[in-house]
Amino acid sequence: MPLSPEQEAEIASLRTQTRPTLRPVSEGVERHLYLAHPVLDHGFVRVIDYMGDDAAICQAARVSYGKGTKSVQNDEALIRYLMRHWHSTPFEMCELKLHVKLPVFVARQWIRHRTANVNEYSARYSILDREFYIPEESTLAAQSVVNNQGRGETLTPAEAARVLHWLKSDATRAYDHYEAMISQDGQQGLARELARMNLPANIYTQWYWKVDLHNLFHFLRLRAEAHAQYEIRVYAELICKIVADWVPLAYGAFADYRLGGVTLSGKAVECLKRMLKGEVVTQETSGMSKGEWREFEGLIG
Amino acid sequence: MPLSPEQEAEIASLRTQTRPTLRPVSEGVERHLYLAHPVLDHGFVRVIDYMGDDAAICQAARVSYGKGTKSVQNDEALIRYLMRHWHSTPFEMCELKLHVKLPVFVARQWIRHRTANVNEYSARYSILDREFYIPEESTLAAQSVVNNQGRGETLTPAEAARVLHWLKSDATRAYDHYEAMISQDGQQGLARELARMNLPANIYTQWYWKVDLHNLFHFLRLRAEAHAQYEIRVYAELICKIVADWVPLAYGAFADYRLGGVTLSGKAVECLKRMLKGEVVTQETSGMSKGEWREFEGLIG
Amino acid sequence: MPLSPEQEAEIASLRTQTRPTLRPVSEGVERHLYLAHPVLDHGFVRVIDYMGDDAAICQAARVSYGKGTKSVQNDEALIRYLMRHWHSTPFEMCELKLHVKLPVFVARQWIRHRTANVNEYSARYSILDREFYIPEESTLAAQSVVNNQGRGETLTPAEAARVLHWLKSDATRAYDHYEAMISQDGQQGLARELARMNLPANIYTQWYWKVDLHNLFHFLRLRAEAHAQYEIRVYAELICKIVADWVPLAYGAFADYRLGGVTLSGKAVECLKRMLKGEVVTQETSGMSKGEWREFEGLIG
Amino acid sequence: MPLSPEQEAEIASLRTQTRPTLRPVSEGVERHLYLAHPVLDHGFVRVIDYMGDDAAICQAARVSYGKGTKSVQNDEALIRYLMRHWHSTPFEMCELKLHVKLPVFVARQWIRHRTANVNEYSARYSILDREFYIPEESTLAAQSVVNNQGRGETLTPAEAARVLHWLKSDATRAYDHYEAMISQDGQQGLARELARMNLPANIYTQWYWKVDLHNLFHFLRLRAEAHAQYEIRVYAELICKIVADWVPLAYGAFADYRLGGVTLSGKAVECLKRMLKGEVVTQETSGMSKGEWREFEGLIG
Repeated sequence: MPLSPEQEAEIASLRTQTRPTLRPVSEGVERHLYLAHPVLDHGFVRVIDYMGDDAAICQAARVSYGKGTKSVQNDEALIRYLMRHWHSTPFEMCELKLHVKLPVFVARQWIRHRTANVNEYSARYSILDREFYIPEESTLAAQSVVNNQGRGETLTPAEAARVLHWLKSDATRAYDHYEAMISQDGQQGLARELARMNLPANIYTQWYWKVDLHNLFHFLRLRAEAHAQYEIRVYAELICKIVADWVPLAYGAFADYRLGGVTLSGKAVECLKRMLKGEVVTQETSGMSKGEWREFEGLIG
Repeated sequence: MPLSPEQEAEIASLRTQTRPTLRPVSEGVERHLYLAHPVLDHGFVRVIDYMGDDAAICQAARVSYGKGTKSVQNDEALIRYLMRHWHSTPFEMCELKLHVKLPVFVARQWIRHRTANVNEYSARYSILDREFYIPEESTLAAQSVVNNQGRGETLTPAEAARVLHWLKSDATRAYDHYEAMISQDGQQGLARELARMNLPANIYTQWYWKVDLHNLFHFLRLRAEAHAQYEIRVYAELICKIVADWVPLAYGAFADYRLGGVTLSGKAVECLKRMLKGEVVTQETSGMSKGEWREFEGLIG
Repeated sequence: MPLSPEQEAEIASLRTQTRPTLRPVSEGVERHLYLAHPVLDHGFVRVIDYMGDDAAICQAARVSYGKGTKSVQNDEALIRYLMRHWHSTPFEMCELKLHVKLPVFVARQWIRHRTANVNEYSARYSILDREFYIPEESTLAAQSVVNNQGRGETLTPAEAARVLHWLKSDATRAYDHYEAMISQDGQQGLARELARMNLPANIYTQWYWKVDLHNLFHFLRLRAEAHAQYEIRVYAELICKIVADWVPLAYGAFADYRLGGVTLSGKAVECLKRMLKGEVVTQETSGMSKGEWREFEGLIG
Repeated sequence: MPLSPEQEAEIASLRTQTRPTLRPVSEGVERHLYLAHPVLDHGFVRVIDYMGDDAAICQAARVSYGKGTKSVQNDEALIRYLMRHWHSTPFEMCELKLHVKLPVFVARQWIRHRTANVNEYSARYSILDREFYIPEESTLAAQSVVNNQGRGETLTPAEAARVLHWLKSDATRAYDHYEAMISQDGQQGLARELARMNLPANIYTQWYWKVDLHNLFHFLRLRAEAHAQYEIRVYAELICKIVADWVPLAYGAFADYRLGGVTLSGKAVECLKRMLKGEVVTQETSGMSKGEWREFEGLIG
C-alpha cells in the first residue's frame, strides 16, 4: 500500500476542509482532489489543484468580461471548433497540478515533455524509500520482432520467473547497500547525492507536476496511445479519466479529434480519393513505401 | 470609464456567486477577483483566476502529502531561502490569470515575455473600440540626453499641447476611416484583417494573460523597475499590489531580493572589499569602465 | 526598394567572404545567405545563419559519432518515419536565423509563435523609417460572409480607391507628425518611446528571428496555409522555398505529411470506412455537425 | 577509454573535411569540433556544431544589415552592457550543439534545464554499454553536516573501500542480469524497455544536447558553481572552457557579472551602506536571519 496511515489521515483531513471561492469550480475534479489513485504496484496519481473548467476555455477564446458561457451547446460547438482548427491558446488557460509517484525509468520518459512545471523529491537531500516496481508476470513481454522499440509475446513462465527473481534480488541488494553506505551508525556515512547512484531505475520517485491543458493533451496523445510503453500508458490512461471528469467537453473533443483521429499524408489522401471512386489501389500503385502502406491499411481498416 | 453598465453588472453578478472548493484559497486575492482596476486613461487589470498560495509553494518544495505548512514562520524562512538561492520551480506552482486592457504599443513590449499564455481580442474577427491612449500632459517628456531609450525633461506647455492635438486628431481621423472602410452600409466593406492596419499604436487592445509566479516575478522585476517605460510600469506596479495580497510571503521575498536587491560584478565586489578595509577607490583604480562605475556608485549610494 | 546602396554593398561584401569550416554545410541555403528576398511592397526576408542539414537530423536521431549518414535513401526513409510518427526532437537540432522586414500588424501575428528567438528594431531607441504597407488593389477584399476572420470578394474599384487614399494619406500625416514631435530642431523633442504611438499598424518594422526546424515547420504549417492572412502567408511561402533548398528531405516529408496531409476525427474515420465499403453516407447519417461535414467533404473531394 | 577505434577514425576523418561557408566562423571553437574531451571515468563532451560568434551577438542587438562589428572594443562594451542589464535575446542568437556521455544520475539533474533540445540514446531501442561511473576515492565524501544537500569530509579509507566494492559488484551483477534477460540465445529475450529497469543510476547514457548561449550561461551559472554536485560540475567547467574559446567576449562578461558576481538583497545593501560609512554592523543589527548573515559575510569577505 503506497500511503502511510499518517498520510491517509492528512488526505482525509484535507478532504473535509471546504472553503468558499469566487473562482470557477469543476465539481467533477473536486471529487478527485487529494485522493491517491493507485497505479502499478506502488505508484499513484493525486490531483493537488486545478485552474479553470470548460467554460473558462470559451471565456478566454472570447476574451469576455463575464463567464463566457451562453449555453452548454454553444460551448461544446466552440470547443470542438477550437480543437479541430488547432487553436491551442484557449486550452492553455486551464491548469492541472498532480502529485505522482512513479518508477525512475518512467520518470525519465515523462520529463522529456518540457512544457510543464516539476518539483521532484530530492535524493540529494532526502532518503528514498525501499520501493521498486516489479512487473506482474503477464506484462513481462519479449522484445518485439517487428517493432524495435516495443514488446512482443509474453515470456514463458520459466523465463518470467528468472527475470522476476533477478529484478527482486538485485533491487534488494542495491537498496541494502544504499542504506549501509549512508548509515551514520558508527561511520560518517556517504553523501546521499553519491549513494543514490547505486539504485536501479525501477525504484520509485515522486514529484509535483503541473501542466496546462493544451500540453497535457499533447502528453496524453503520445502516452495514452497503443505504442507507448505500458508502464507510462497506465498513468496516462488514469489521467485521461480525471480530465474527462474535470473538463468533459474539452476531453470529448480531444478523444474524437486526437485520440480517435488520424493524420493522413497527401499521398494517402490521393489514394483515398481514388478508392472512393471505386479504384483498387495497392501498395505498388499507391506511391507509398511498404511501411507507410501497412500503417495506412491499419488506419482505414 | 472603461466598462459598460452590462459589463459592470456581469462582474457584480460574478462577485456574488461563491461556491465551495477543496482547493487552497487565498483570501487576499479573492477580494480582487473580477474587479476592473483602472490603469492609464482607458486600461484596466482584472484578476480572472488564480492557483495556489504561499503554502502551495512550500508544499511543492517539500513534495508533501498534506498542506506542506508547519508554521507561517517556517514557510517564510523556506520561501526566502528558495528565492535567495534561485530555486524557480516551487514558484512555478502558482498561477495568475489576468484580463488586461492596454494600448497596442504596451502590448508589443509585454508580449516579448514568452513564458505566458495569451488570448488576445482578435481584430481579424471583431471590431476594435474607439479608445486611444492620450497621455496626461505631465507624462509628456522629451527624449533623454543621457539614456538613448528613456525620457528626460517634461515638454514645455506649448510643445505638449501640439503633441496632444496631433495624437487626438490623428487617432480620430484614423478611426473614422477605419469605421468607414469596414462599414457594410451601401458597400461590401473592407475585411477587418485589412482595415485594422490603419489604426495607430495607441489604440487599446485586450487579452487574457496567464502566467506562473516565477515568470510573473521576472516580468515585474523588469517592468516595475525605474528604467521601464512609464506606460508599462503602471501596469506592473498595480500587479505588484495584487501579488502582495495573493502571496504575501513570496512577494516579500521578491521585494527584498529582486526589486530591492542589486547584482554586483566580480570587479565591483573586489572594490567593495577594498573600500570596507578603508581604501579610497576611484573609477581609475576600480578596473571598471565609466558607465559601470557610475552605476556602481548609484547602487551603493 | 527596401535597401540603401550602403546596405546592398555590405551584403555583397559579405557574400564574397568565404571561410573554411568543419561544420556541416548545406549548399542549398548558402546560395541564399545575406540576400534580401523581397516580400510585399517594402518587406524582405534574409537568411543570416543556419545550423545543420538533413544529415544532422539523422545524426541526432541516431546519437551517432560520425556523420550519421549511411546513404541518402536511408536518410530519407528515416526522416519520413520521424515526421510520420511526430518525433520532434531530431528536427529541433537544426536552426535558421532570418532578418525580416515586415508590417507591424504582421509582426503582431508572427510573434505569437513563442518558441523562437527575436531581436526587434527598437522604436524606443531608434527612429522608424517612413515606409508603410499599402496593399495592391487586387488584394483589397471585403469581409468574408462565410468566415468571420477571412476575406471574400474583391472590392469595387471605387471602394478600393477610397481605401487606398485613406491608407496613404493617414500614414503620411501620422508620419509627418511623428517626425515633427521627435524633431530636436528648436525644441527638446518628444521621447521616441512616446512618439511611436502615433504610427499606424502598417508601418514596417524589422527583426532578427531564429527558430529551430521543428518549430519553423509548425509556423509554416499554420501560416503557409490557405486560411492564413495573405500578408503573413507570402512571408511563409517564401520561407518554404528557402527551407526546401536548405533541408530538401525534411521539407519533402513536411510537404507530404503536414502541408499536404489532413487530420480526420474518429467520427470521420468511421464514415470513411463505411464509404469504402460502398455505403452512401450523408451529413445526417454521419454523426458530424454541418460545419464538420462541410470540412470533411472538402478534404476527401 | 570511451571511444572505439572505429569511432576515433570517424572523428579523425570528420576533422579533415573542411568546407567553405559564408557564415560567421569562430576559429576558437572550430579547434574543438568533434573531438571527445574526457570527463569522469567514461564520459566525454564533444562539440558537434555551433551557430554564431561574439559579432553575431552585436549584430542581432543592432538588427544590422552587415556584420554588426565596428571594432572589437565597441563589441566588448556592448556585450558587457547587454550582460549587465539582463538583455537576454542577443545571447539567444548563438547556439551550441554537444554530444555528451554522462552517468544517468547526472543526466537526471541536467535534463531539468528545459530550454534545450535533446536526443538521448534510447534504451527501449538499443542496448546500453557496460560502463558505470565509479568515483575516485578522493571524491567519496560524507554527507555534509551543515548543508543537507552537500558533501562534507572525505570518507576513511576503509569506508571508501567498502563503498567502492559495493558500487562495482552491484553494477557488475545488475549488468550481467540485464544481458542475460535480453539475450536471445535459447530464449525470446525480455523487451529492452523492461530490462533496462535493472540498471543502476551510475550507468552511462549519452545524448545530443543543443542550447542557445543565454540558456547555456544559465546552466553554467548554476552547475559550474561551488554548490553544484561535483559530478555535474566537472562537465560544466569543461563547457566553460569551450565557451571561452568560442565567444571570448561574451564569456568574459559572463565570468565577471554572473560567475564572479553576487546578488545582494535590499537589506544587505542597506547594511553595506552603513558599513561603508564606518558603522559596525552585526547580525543582530542587520535585520537578516543567521543564515542570510552567514552568506552575506561570505560574499563580502
